Amino acid sequence: MMRSDTVEIFAVPGIPLVRKDDDLVVLIGEGLAQGGIEPRSGDVFVLAQKIVSKAEGRMVDLATIKPSTAAIELAANVQKDPRLVELILSESVRVVRARPGVLIVEHRLGFVMANAGVDQSNVASPDEPQQALLLPVDPDGSAAALRERLSLRFGVPVAVIINDSFGRAWRRGTCSVAIGAAGLPSLMDLRGLPDLFGRKLQVSITGHADEIAAAASLVMGQGAEGQPVVVVRGLRWRGPDNAASDLVRPAAEDMFR
Amino acid sequence: MMRSDTVEIFAVPGIPLVRKDDDLVVLIGEGLAQGGIEPRSGDVFVLAQKIVSKAEGRMVDLATIKPSTAAIELAANVQKDPRLVELILSESVRVVRARPGVLIVEHRLGFVMANAGVDQSNVASPDEPQQALLLPVDPDGSAAALRERLSLRFGVPVAVIINDSFGRAWRRGTCSVAIGAAGLPSLMDLRGLPDLFGRKLQVSITGHADEIAAAASLVMGQGAEGQPVVVVRGLRWRGPDNAASDLVRPAAEDMFR
Repeated sequence: MMRSDTVEIFAVPGIPLVRKDDDLVVLIGEGLAQGGIEPRSGDVFVLAQKIVSKAEGRMVDLATIKPSTAAIELAANVQKDPRLVELILSESVRVVRARPGVLIVEHRLGFVMANAGVDQSNVASPDEPQQALLLPVDPDGSAAALRERLSLRFGVPVAVIINDSFGRAWRRGTCSVAIGAAGLPSLMDLRGLPDLFGRKLQVSITGHADEIAAAASLVMGQGAEGQPVVVVRGLRWRGPDNAASDLVRPAAEDMFR
Repeated sequence: MMRSDTVEIFAVPGIPLVRKDDDLVVLIGEGLAQGGIEPRSGDVFVLAQKIVSKAEGRMVDLATIKPSTAAIELAANVQKDPRLVELILSESVRVVRARPGVLIVEHRLGFVMANAGVDQSNVASPDEPQQALLLPVDPDGSAAALRERLSLRFGVPVAVIINDSFGRAWRRGTCSVAIGAAGLPSLMDLRGLPDLFGRKLQVSITGHADEIAAAASLVMGQGAEGQPVVVVRGLRWRGPDNAASDLVRPAAEDMFR
């Protein structure tokens, strides 16, 4: 077998429904122990945004939200709950597109995304229908903190990505991207490396953490129940670590907002 | 070990530099045999666009291209070779953005992408500097034909994706997507499935083939030399097969071109 370069992607078993103030490092450690899985140096732990947000207490009761006049007007246009729109606006720096059923904004962290990532599915039981879940306050910071504690706990350096499903311009279907990352290059610059024939590579800055986020999503989505923590094992990379915020194209160099 | 759901991604070893009229099915079969790898039912073979284009003879000698006046004018604006711009326009139905150094078009197949996918890196040796490589004429058709022959040769049903690196609106770095697919749902519709709490999932059409394309790209990029054929093993999916063309958002429902 010449399969030294095999990359493996598998879910951490036994992650329970996560609640505010749960310690994700403990839950991951217990799940790995339950599965008999030993973390290895270079493992990338990909966590679904939802569980990070829940653990950080980013759930908001819509009943506590009083929508502004602007939110009420926009809500009528996009046909959404005015309280939800108020929350979305509070997480955003600008509205990029608004149509009936569609509200695409620039999130305060620069992500151009639907509804500022504010989510109403899988966040509460049916008898609590008023809950909405915001993105973590600082996903790169969360990833860095998780990475430090996971590496310490397991005694090997690991990397962490927090992923979320994003819609896209020009293409149908969501694709997961990295909203937080630590311990690996999120953006990997291969410019200047010769290609197979010695010519300089032309387009060669890859959204490395986004490709890992997408790969992990394939396994997260495979379970009938949620599999919100996935390990990507066997990757090799080059270049300095950088955060997921480096994947955000600044508005000034963006041609599509 | 509770790792029944592990997804493995590995390169087919020993794929040589591909030339016009090479039989990719034969090259893949030889590579797998060399690596002692037995294909399994449900394996997804992801092929880099470049080798499919090369095998199909989509290389064009720029010396044979006579640029139109429109191409010459646009080339001055975007600071590219007028012959290359002529080729790009011949593969496109509209120019989406043109800036110095940047030419984003709608490819005749609907892809919004830089340079209509016309590529000058890794396509020829330095003593043939005039070569450019176009996308396959019909990537979904190519994928379907490859899928049929690979499945027949190996005696198990496999799926095929042809991937390519795309730039993106709003985010830096390229991310691979599927430009051709056969034997799996490219777009997977999970609408109507209850979430963990019985609420209907909100955003639940995933760009399944794009996430697989991105995952494969991680392994393709790992080799010092090219690893243009990658197997993704262990995925499960639901729903009917559909082609990569289903991932293209029709212009009429697109808010960003």
